Amino acid sequence: VARFALGRGEFGLIAAVRRAAGKTRGGWRVGIGDDAAVLRVPAGRDLVSTVDALVEDVHFRFRTTDARSLGGKALAVNLSDLGAMGAVPVGCLLALGVPADVPGEHLDGFLAGLLAQARAARCPLVGGDTVASAIFWASLTAFGLVRRGRALLRSAARPGDRVFVTGTLGASALGLALLESGRGDSPDERPLVRRHRAPRPPFQVGARLARRHDVGAAIDVSDGLVGDLAHVARESGVAIDVAVERVPLPAGASRVAARVGADPLWAALFGGEDYELAFSARRSAPSAAELSRALGVRVAEIGSVRPGRGVRLLRAGKPVQIPGSSWDHFKAPAARAEE
Amino acid sequence: VARFALGRGEFGLIAAVRRAAGKTRGGWRVGIGDDAAVLRVPAGRDLVSTVDALVEDVHFRFRTTDARSLGGKALAVNLSDLGAMGAVPVGCLLALGVPADVPGEHLDGFLAGLLAQARAARCPLVGGDTVASAIFWASLTAFGLVRRGRALLRSAARPGDRVFVTGTLGASALGLALLESGRGDSPDERPLVRRHRAPRPPFQVGARLARRHDVGAAIDVSDGLVGDLAHVARESGVAIDVAVERVPLPAGASRVAARVGADPLWAALFGGEDYELAFSARRSAPSAAELSRALGVRVAEIGSVRPGRGVRLLRAGKPVQIPGSSWDHFKAPAARAEE
Repeated sequence: VARFALGRGEFGLIAAVRRAAGKTRGGWRVGIGDDAAVLRVPAGRDLVSTVDALVEDVHFRFRTTDARSLGGKALAVNLSDLGAMGAVPVGCLLALGVPADVPGEHLDGFLAGLLAQARAARCPLVGGDTVASAIFWASLTAFGLVRRGRALLRSAARPGDRVFVTGTLGASALGLALLESGRGDSPDERPLVRRHRAPRPPFQVGARLARRHDVGAAIDVSDGLVGDLAHVARESGVAIDVAVERVPLPAGASRVAARVGADPLWAALFGGEDYELAFSARRSAPSAAELSRALGVRVAEIGSVRPGRGVRLLRAGKPVQIPGSSWDHFKAPAARAEE
Repeated sequence: VARFALGRGEFGLIAAVRRAAGKTRGGWRVGIGDDAAVLRVPAGRDLVSTVDALVEDVHFRFRTTDARSLGGKALAVNLSDLGAMGAVPVGCLLALGVPADVPGEHLDGFLAGLLAQARAARCPLVGGDTVASAIFWASLTAFGLVRRGRALLRSAARPGDRVFVTGTLGASALGLALLESGRGDSPDERPLVRRHRAPRPPFQVGARLARRHDVGAAIDVSDGLVGDLAHVARESGVAIDVAVERVPLPAGASRVAARVGADPLWAALFGGEDYELAFSARRSAPSAAELSRALGVRVAEIGSVRPGRGVRLLRAGKPVQIPGSSWDHFKAPAARAEE
């Protein structure tokens, strides 16, 4: 049964979401059902806000995407941004473009996945706008709170910092490559496909990082590690060296990647959509193993910050050349990493 | 020259917007250029947030729309929502779907109009996401601040309240009807067309209303007066009577409406997109003339609140029947007013 069927019109959809979203708690004084949402921001907290959009036939196809995962992912990518600022999620707004002929199960699945992710992350949907559109698209705005003045910035890396990353990188790009080759069903492939379809960003780690005094810059790995570290390098006015042999790859990545002619290291460096956290920490910071215990996630030390500009890839301490052709493999536009 | 030309890719667009948007001031600690924006909310203020979307071929056509006005309108409709909550705008986020073949002047015009509106309203663009899309769409999230606990709610109307509206109603719907009839160029038509293309919501009035202790509910007139008052009636658990002869019409509306076979009163009651404020005030509130002086805008008293439900239209104190056919004239779905 289509819980959110559009037959009842735009207002019916909002009313259905309102019922399913449930009563708003926390600092929200007003949620769905007024001209705007109202949040009481606690003393000593800064408000963090971010917006991300997903578009049919650009970021996904309903033919190959499970709508429920897509709804969860639409919010997950925002949670990842909040985590990268060190913020705890508090709520979200949804703008949704919906074709008149959208199958009920696509809309229902999307909203059910979004609301389930919202509950799991304690990030309630507090308002939105649903509009007609020739294609399906969703724009999610998410809000978070961070201790006053303690947001993790891209501009906070300093020469001498060490560079860390959570989890493993490249799984999402390999998962996508598997799907595009008509694979993804074998037991060692499924976890990679899941990372692509239903990323689970370690956004809670961001707030833990923000509490530490030895952490510098942070960013979520969404465009690809090299591209994202290049943002940090630019905003901080520094250069970043990455030891490619230390970049953590998913279990069995080489074996699976070989089946689709992919290189797991390229996937990790340029693939994107990992939604892990990359951060710099001062020289005095503890080891990756100790950070890992303190933060509750796998952490790897992959590089360092020095004066200069841009990102340099090193293998055994020597600069690595990146054949331009490799970039196309995962459809990462070259311009991204150059910035 | 296309200042925001997409040729440079997504990052080029963001960089160009960042330069044009200028340095972020006020309570913003971080604007465009990080994973998310960071706002320091002053003590004693609640945060108000709202999202609205515009879609090509649904809400506008570039063939008949001037892109600069459209960009301004995309933000204006959000400012209207903030005003309806009694909030002062502080910033906005933009998610933008852009076709690969969008003419440079459309994109430039849209962004220039948006940024001009943002400057005029002191509501800086602090972040966003630009994505490829088969059609052009924009989703604007706007933030405002209101004194703690003083947001104007749809649920705050009480039996005995009097009902007021700012400005005049129906201009936008008449302007649209003129455009659709291939008219709109004569001197008495142009102001109506302008109200449709480039609405100027009196959002500053909202903050003034929020300071008063004799104001009840408020809403912005976006769906049409009757539909919007129906929202207030439902959320407040009351009935609202509207004296149709007291609804303020634009100057010359009857004469212009006759040219396109429209009824100015229907436009005022059901047309929508007026972006004026409707509000209720206690019996003790001053006259419309006095409120007008205090608020700095034209204010008309158009009805009253009583126990019950729904919106009732009265002429000379007697209920007016609304022929169903009239609803279609301005394309207002009947379902809207029934809710």
